Amino acid sequence: MSHHPDNTSTVPVADTKSGLRHRVRAWKQEGATIGLVPTMGALHHGHLSLVKRIREACDKVVVSIFVNPAQFAAGEDLDAYPRQVADDLEALATAAADLAYIPAGGEIYPDGFATLVKVRDMGDILCGVHRPGHFDGVTTVVAKLLLQCAPDTAIFGEKDYQQLQIIRRMATDLDIPVTILGGKIIRDEDGLAASSRNVYLSKDERKTAVNLPRILQDAVARAPASKDLRRLERDAAAALKKAGFNSVDYVEIRDADNLALIKKITRPARILAAARIGKTRLIDNMPVDPAPPGG
Amino acid sequence: MSHHPDNTSTVPVADTKSGLRHRVRAWKQEGATIGLVPTMGALHHGHLSLVKRIREACDKVVVSIFVNPAQFAAGEDLDAYPRQVADDLEALATAAADLAYIPAGGEIYPDGFATLVKVRDMGDILCGVHRPGHFDGVTTVVAKLLLQCAPDTAIFGEKDYQQLQIIRRMATDLDIPVTILGGKIIRDEDGLAASSRNVYLSKDERKTAVNLPRILQDAVARAPASKDLRRLERDAAAALKKAGFNSVDYVEIRDADNLALIKKITRPARILAAARIGKTRLIDNMPVDPAPPGG
Repeated sequence: MSHHPDNTSTVPVADTKSGLRHRVRAWKQEGATIGLVPTMGALHHGHLSLVKRIREACDKVVVSIFVNPAQFAAGEDLDAYPRQVADDLEALATAAADLAYIPAGGEIYPDGFATLVKVRDMGDILCGVHRPGHFDGVTTVVAKLLLQCAPDTAIFGEKDYQQLQIIRRMATDLDIPVTILGGKIIRDEDGLAASSRNVYLSKDERKTAVNLPRILQDAVARAPASKDLRRLERDAAAALKKAGFNSVDYVEIRDADNLALIKKITRPARILAAARIGKTRLIDNMPVDPAPPGG
Repeated sequence: MSHHPDNTSTVPVADTKSGLRHRVRAWKQEGATIGLVPTMGALHHGHLSLVKRIREACDKVVVSIFVNPAQFAAGEDLDAYPRQVADDLEALATAAADLAYIPAGGEIYPDGFATLVKVRDMGDILCGVHRPGHFDGVTTVVAKLLLQCAPDTAIFGEKDYQQLQIIRRMATDLDIPVTILGGKIIRDEDGLAASSRNVYLSKDERKTAVNLPRILQDAVARAPASKDLRRLERDAAAALKKAGFNSVDYVEIRDADNLALIKKITRPARILAAARIGKTRLIDNMPVDPAPPGG
């Protein structure tokens, strides 16, 4: 990636809601469809795969970059979260995004801001147990970004699978006229799911981290024939600790749509996990499909 | 009002979200601006004044009728709340509304519905203290109605002043692209604010009820010169009980914009009250303006 991009490889930036709306309105008047990729920046190939995927569905692609304080619980890594706007803009230029929306905090949370968008039940399990208020922060800011940008389609990575399902629920429930797409998890060569937080890992920690997808893959293989999914989950959690994770927030197998706990794999399910190495919290998940008939 | 309206005095009805959107989209394509009057039906001249007022601002007027279960607290009058759709449609035809939106419950709360829109602080005072969850129910359904209809302007009566201010906050906070108007309180000849709940009052109770606006009017006259607004509030509450109200939920003088408690009338304020006669809970409010210089 060149550090001296020429004019043909820069991406326009809007830093106000009105600037964003002005641009989007003009595109819509030309008959273009709009795709939005909400991000917190620190873009990696996972994000860029979302840009590529949404371009198949939309004429114009907007990528928002906003590190949203409301979705970090007290004591989490808000201050440490990687910020690299110049690199991000270069990556977006190369990916041929049509607009970067980088709002100042006041564009998102004006004086007196007091509104919360909350998805009950689905937001209170899995990561919701370990990150109090996290998903309320996510759904509130995503509702705002969807209403500021008014895209036809928005895309979120399946890496944050619970977030994706909660956002689908929220957009449906509030009648926000948008199609929500999920983008497949992008993995590095060692199998670790791409994440902006992977930069926190030391070389040794990374060696431990790659056991997360391996152990989940093993559970995925066993799940369709399992008569005791809770035991399978406990075994996977124990394997993670044995592999060097300091603690395991959860390993759970749930319905792929509504995230309800299930006892048997009779329809599409998902295994989801969160575990910690040192100060770094990693999440991952994989589809668990029913065994084929006679399988 | 005729009970045999001819074809020129009927109002079209949409009972699905898609039917509503179809109609609104067609109007917008013609360049028309859209106004929405959300109601719970049982329309009276207060509602009809909102239709008249919003027509000054918009080309097409949609009136929604939906008795929203989510905004009734347990033990409140959800079942008893007056329902009179035929009369409502006749009134809307006479008022020349362009569309009545009367969604079935499933159009508003689909299976699995789990999302809550909450305005903190402003929703926890005044009526929020006495009607747990009420304003969450209001803001959730209003967000949905605004996003289903996508009006340019929506109007709410100042009779529910706290609700109006909470909805303004919610629409601003969530970036819903709509202008929120407040409609002046419409009073019957005896001074009582028009309300669908006034039908609950017996003839004797009504005689008691009219003391609510009288006592508030008296407090409004005294407030600008008052050195102790809390005492003024207590005096008004005592006067309401003396006049025959069984209990007083609150009488409070607050900032007209953000509803903060104030100690002195230095900028526009509002006196707000809720009190009960038998099973009927009545609310009312009035502007309190600073005394003119030298006054």
